[in-house]
Parts: sequence; C-alpha cells; structure tokens
Amino acid sequence: MNDPRPPKTARPNTPAPEDLTTWDRDHHLHPWAAVDHWRETEYERIEQAEGIHVWNAEGRRLIDGPGGMWCVQIGYGNREIAEAIAEQAVRMPYASPWSGTNAPAAELAHRIAEMAPGDLNTVHFTTGGSTAVDTALRTAQFLNNQLGRPEKKIILAREKGYHGSTYLAASVTGKERFRTRFDRDARVHFLPDVNPYRRPEGMSVEDWCDAKVADLENAIAEIGPERIGAFIAEPILCSGGVIVPPEGYHRRTLEICRRHDILYISDEVVTGFGRLGHWFASEEVFGIKPDIITCAKGLTSGYQPLGACILSDEIMDRLAAAGDSSVFYNGYTYSGHPVACAAALKNIEIMERDRILEHVREVSPHFHARLAELADHPIVGDVRGMGLLGCVEARLGAGTLEEDSRFGEELDAVCEEMGLILRPIFNMAVFSPPLIISKAQIDEMFDILARGLDRVAA
Amino acid sequence: MNDPRPPKTARPNTPAPEDLTTWDRDHHLHPWAAVDHWRETEYERIEQAEGIHVWNAEGRRLIDGPGGMWCVQIGYGNREIAEAIAEQAVRMPYASPWSGTNAPAAELAHRIAEMAPGDLNTVHFTTGGSTAVDTALRTAQFLNNQLGRPEKKIILAREKGYHGSTYLAASVTGKERFRTRFDRDARVHFLPDVNPYRRPEGMSVEDWCDAKVADLENAIAEIGPERIGAFIAEPILCSGGVIVPPEGYHRRTLEICRRHDILYISDEVVTGFGRLGHWFASEEVFGIKPDIITCAKGLTSGYQPLGACILSDEIMDRLAAAGDSSVFYNGYTYSGHPVACAAALKNIEIMERDRILEHVREVSPHFHARLAELADHPIVGDVRGMGLLGCVEARLGAGTLEEDSRFGEELDAVCEEMGLILRPIFNMAVFSPPLIISKAQIDEMFDILARGLDRVAA
Repeated sequence: MNDPRPPKTARPNTPAPEDLTTWDRDHHLHPWAAVDHWRETEYERIEQAEGIHVWNAEGRRLIDGPGGMWCVQIGYGNREIAEAIAEQAVRMPYASPWSGTNAPAAELAHRIAEMAPGDLNTVHFTTGGSTAVDTALRTAQFLNNQLGRPEKKIILAREKGYHGSTYLAASVTGKERFRTRFDRDARVHFLPDVNPYRRPEGMSVEDWCDAKVADLENAIAEIGPERIGAFIAEPILCSGGVIVPPEGYHRRTLEICRRHDILYISDEVVTGFGRLGHWFASEEVFGIKPDIITCAKGLTSGYQPLGACILSDEIMDRLAAAGDSSVFYNGYTYSGHPVACAAALKNIEIMERDRILEHVREVSPHFHARLAELADHPIVGDVRGMGLLGCVEARLGAGTLEEDSRFGEELDAVCEEMGLILRPIFNMAVFSPPLIISKAQIDEMFDILARGLDRVAA
Repeated sequence: MNDPRPPKTARPNTPAPEDLTTWDRDHHLHPWAAVDHWRETEYERIEQAEGIHVWNAEGRRLIDGPGGMWCVQIGYGNREIAEAIAEQAVRMPYASPWSGTNAPAAELAHRIAEMAPGDLNTVHFTTGGSTAVDTALRTAQFLNNQLGRPEKKIILAREKGYHGSTYLAASVTGKERFRTRFDRDARVHFLPDVNPYRRPEGMSVEDWCDAKVADLENAIAEIGPERIGAFIAEPILCSGGVIVPPEGYHRRTLEICRRHDILYISDEVVTGFGRLGHWFASEEVFGIKPDIITCAKGLTSGYQPLGACILSDEIMDRLAAAGDSSVFYNGYTYSGHPVACAAALKNIEIMERDRILEHVREVSPHFHARLAELADHPIVGDVRGMGLLGCVEARLGAGTLEEDSRFGEELDAVCEEMGLILRPIFNMAVFSPPLIISKAQIDEMFDILARGLDRVAA
C-alpha cells in the first residue's frame, strides 16, 4: 500500500544514518522532552517530502496527518517557494528592522493588513507564534501603562488553550495535564473548558453557550474589569483537542470584552491562512473583529520561521494619543526577515492562484462527512472539527493519564504502520493535513483511521 | 567614491518603490518605533547586497558597518548558502520537532556540541536570540523548582546589558535610557555598569575589576545566594556600547557563581560564531566554561532565523536525577527548522573552508590599530572593542539624551553620505562588519569614520 521511493537527490556529504540517530539522541533536546529519559528517546527522522506525503529515514511514505505542525498549507516539495526563498537569500538575505526595511517585509505588512479584519492595519513581525503572542500580551501591558492604569493587567485565558512557549505565552496556556515545573506569570486567570462535549448530560448546546459566556462575565465581576487587561482566545482550541466553542460564543464574549475595555486577542496561529477556508477565521467564520490577531505557521506554510502580531488602528491611536514619546521597545533581530517574508508572499500568491481557500471550503464537507462516520465506532466518544481540522476522542473509562495516553499512542502506532501520521494527544488524535489534500486522499486518510480504530478496539 | 550599480535581476511583479515606502510607513511597526510618530518615520530600504556592501533603494552602495545587526558573518550574496537553503526547502521544508527530527537539526546539534566549551553538549533550538535567552532563564526556573528550592529564582543581570525582547529576555535587559512602558519581571537584580571607561578618575583598571567583582559579591550577600538562580552576562556588552569588562572579570565572576550554585548564562548571541575569532568566546577568549550559552545571529550569518540554548551535562543530569518525570515544556514550532539548520551547517562549512575565524584573528590587530588612531580626535572620549567589534564614544558635555542622540545621528548621517552605515547608540557609534572584510576595506571604513568625526566636530 505504501509507495516508498528513493531520495530524489543525494545530499552532499550526507552523514551516516546511524550517526544522525546518535547525534539527535545525544545532543538535541526536543520540545517537551521528558527530562529523566530524554536521551533514551529516538525520534522518527523525516528525510523527504512531497505534496501531502513525507518519507521517513527507512524510506517509508506516510500521509502527513498533522500537516507538519498545523502548518504545511500548500504541501511539501513546492519548488516555486524554494526558488523565491533562494532568490531573496542571494539578492539580500538580511536587513536590520531597527534601522531599515526591505521590500518583502513592506509588501507583506501591506498584504496582511489587507487580509486582516476591521482596522487591524499594523503589523509587527516576529519569529513565530510564541513571539507573536508574547508581543500581543506585552502590547496590552504597554497600552494600559501608557493610559495610566497599571493595575489593568490580568489576562483572561482558557483551560485547554495553547499559546506558545515563551514565559509569557506559556503563562496563558491552559493545558493542565502537562506536569511541569516551569514558572508562570501570576497575573493570569483561566476560564473553564468550553468544550461542548464536556457539557453535563441533558444540557443543550445553547445552554452550554450561556454557561460559558457566564464564566467570562462572572470572572470579570469577581476580579473587576479595572484589573483585566486582555482576553486571549484561539477561535478553535487546537492543540487542546480541536475544541470548537458553541455557536455565538465568540460574538458574545467579544461584546463583553468591549463593554469593559478588555483587549480581545484572537490567536489565529493555527486557524489563520486557510485552515478554515479563509485568510483569517475571526471575522469570516466567527463574525468578530478582534483588537489583536496573532498568526504564524500557515503564513509561510512552515517553509520559513515567521510570525506576526497584527494591531488595530484603535490601539495605535490610543498609544499615540497618550502624548508620550514612549518607544515600542519590542522586536527581534529576525523581525521582518526578508527571506521569510519573501516565502510568505510567494505562499500567499500560490494560495490565491491555486484557489486553495476555495479548495478547503469545497473539500471540508467531505472531510467532515467521513469524520462523522467515525462517531459510531464503539471506541469513539466524540468527533469534531471545522475546515481541515479534525479530532477523534476516545470514549474511555477512568480517564487516567496513563490509560488516555495509551489510546493515543496505540492509534498512532497502528495508523503509522498503515501509512498515516497522526498527532496523538492523550485520548485524542488530531489531524490537520496539508490544505491541498484531494477528496481521494481524504478518503485514504479516513480509511486508515477507521481500520486503526478497529485494531485498537480489538 | 561610491560604486552604484543596477540590480542584478529584476524581481518579478516588483511593486513600485513609492508603494513600498507607503506600505512600510503605514503598516509595518518596526522594533523600537516611537509610538507617537511611527507613521511619520521613513526607513531606509535595503534592496540588494554583496560581500560587505548593501545597496539602498536609490541604488547607492554602502559599506555595512553593523553587519546587518551583528550577524552577517560570511557577507552578503553568498550563493552556496542560498542553494543549501533552497535544496532543503524542496527536499523537506518542515518537520515537527515534537514528534520527529530531521537530518540538518541532528547534525547541527552535534556540531554545536562539538564547538561549545566544557560539557555543554545539549542543544535546544529556538527562533533567535530572544527565545534562546527566554529558554535559558526558564531552564534556571525549572531546575530550581525541580531541585525543591523554588525561592532560588532571582536573576542577576547588568546595567547596559541587552538580552532580547520576549518579556523575560527584556526583563534582564539593563539599558536604562529607553523610556518604556513595558512591564518587567520583578525577580531581576541589576549590577552596576562594568565599563572601564566609567571608572573614577585615577582608579586603575585592576582596582575597577576588583570593584566590579565586589558588586557581584555584595549583591549575593545582600540578596542571599539561596534566592539567586542565575547570572546572565554577555562576554562583551555589545548593544550597550561594546563594553569590554576588565581582564579577569569573567573568570572571577564565574568562580563566585559556582561557589553559590548560581547558574552562569553566557549570552553569546553577538560574540558567538566568529565575531571574536572563535566559535565561542567564553572559553577561548575569556577562559570560562559557563553552564548555559545562548547563541543566534552569526549561527546562520543572518540568512535564516535561528537560535540555540546550549545546556551543560551537569544541568541535564541534575534534572534527570530529581527522579521526576517532568516534561521540558518549552520549544517552538520552528525549533530545529530544517531549512534554518541547513543554512547554519553550510555557514559553518564555509567559515571552516574559507578559514574565516583565522581571518578575523589576522585582521583584528589592524582593525584595532585604526580604531585606536581615532582616540586622539578631540570629539572622541573613548574607543574600544575586540575582534571585529568596535565602538567610538564621543566626549560630550552634559550628556543629556538629546545631546547624546544628536551626536550619533549626525555621525551616522555624514558617514552614510560618504558610503558607510554605522549603528548610532546615543553618543556612540558601534560597528561589527561582515567577518570577510579585507584590510583595505577596514581602511576604507575607518577613513570614512575619521572624516565623519571631523565633519561632526566642525
């Protein structure tokens, strides 16, 4: 069933595979490694990729279910984007964003401002999603200090939310199961899980929505709006298990924030750039115009590290109106990196020319029809998703961490045997394939997944 | 004197220059923009580059004094590195570092571990210098929580130090003159300026060193070593004005930290990868083996965004020995990005083959002889530097921010007219040209600088 094929070209001076394995194991501390046995872990090495497929070091071809890490929108092996990257690297690979600018950064800032909803016209470039979120949260601090209300600093975030890995971005991340010993900023308040699947038996989704909106209102009443600087929310809580809040939740929570002058930060690192069939999901899918949008991943289809924090004119005007010559003392050596920005511009050009947003909207119903079929499987508790985002959650017993993790790991293993990479998250498997996936490939993916569930159940 | 030349190739679909100017001004919020007039600022657009030269949008050729932003070690327009980048982007542009690995990341982790001093054998990849520092500081938190001493968290940092722009990295940055309204983490204590130029009249440099070492000892005695987690220090405080601490300072401060089990974090984002003629400066230049080294910039010569936090075996062993299955819950979508790592490997290969470290050691004496000549200029108060790092500090009167900034801005303007970009920092100009600079080009650079000082003095 697999279609292994040899590498297209030999990398010059390629080290021996066993050396690469040793080096990675001994010297490369991966994200989220277990500190007590990280040097015993062997990570699968991805050597080559094309379209929706990757090939591992053994030459096995696999469908890339997670799309890299929610990011490879236009698929792998795209020569156009590689050429745009190389062309910019030769022409002008670096210019300091402090003292100067470069054409790709200027053009990309303009394009992003065009795509972003409402008055979100100001783009601050970062190196990825975490630094975009760090910048957004620092901007909320800056604004409230500038406005003379330094006590308005608490960030409302949500259980199951994921916002990245700088100290500040990790502080607003609400994934509770990671037993961790990192510190967190104390000025964060977490709202309870919004997952409709977790609502009490017999409660309607509408009532659940009311309850979740009430969670926000109650937190504001309890803490006091004068102490709350911002609310940060992914439109869909992706890494938390593709949790889609109930219909109407986004609009109602935004209205509440506006009423209390609480900045609404929409973290579109996953949902931006086509994952739900639109450049941004906030307005076109959920009907909200946030104050800040953070994005990364799909912006370059993962071919280059790049992120952006997009700020509203209102924020910028309020900062300017404070009549203070303060400096926006934030930014990175690699802010607006010309090569990364050239990659993003070519990525956007390809998505437009190849009508990839339209394609996502066209194939999504089929994707969700196939996903819905899995709901009847006896081992499955819930299936959910939107656009090209999906999650299968197992119906389990005690729900202990060990038991839950075993489900994800087993499903991952059997699917990989059959040619599909999943992303296991405890008792869930999430998938977000490259956006260029065809209907036939969606069928192939779900066929494997269905067989995988059978095997895990058996 | 300039040698303007037309672009080598026309970028396809190139926007009109006036559009680029408008877009950058209206939509691109640059690092350290002034919030009350940022849309009035026009940034110089760098269009093309080759060797040590850049061309601006008007087609003027300029020597790049700052080397991008302390980073373009191998110079601009290098086709080999562009090809390595493109080759990797086509072969396999992205692999999640959570679930897998890739050959360039594995090989680069091994190479960095080989180059780094002592037992610094563990590499955690980041997206640049700020995230490398953020990771280093979070590691100090993690270690002390893991060891059951959660109160050992204060970070000792230094006035004039610069460590980046995430919340945590900015918190340890000691550049006081930036009037800013961003918050900072409170658990940071700043040690006074170590600049020998600032020592009291009549004091010997040796006595100044004793005083600076005493600053550290006194702070530890005052705060209590049981409350101090780490000391973070650039070997040379670069962005603070290329401040070279007195001889012996590094070794003595490291010994004090070791005595109190305070982690020593050497921030080599600027000094790493050849700036001082060695891969890392900590051991080979300053004789210290730190616990953590952070690096970025020169690692890819700025062609790609990439950083690394390098941890000692001792830290990893202590984490493991705590007998706890904690997860190192830190890392980025773009950690170990295959394209960025491929660029770093090619960069290292080029530096080795072309003997660039040797070249730096060979031309540095000439660089410093020319720099020393400027010390006699009536407007100059101090000249200093090391390797291919230099700074000219004006002798000024009152030292008000406005007066100081005017010197830097004027010198910058007249030098640019004559074909040289500098980096003005208040009453200082710093330079860190591409490492491939020849003796003749060093002469050209200092000739312009000398004429520039004459013109500003006049």
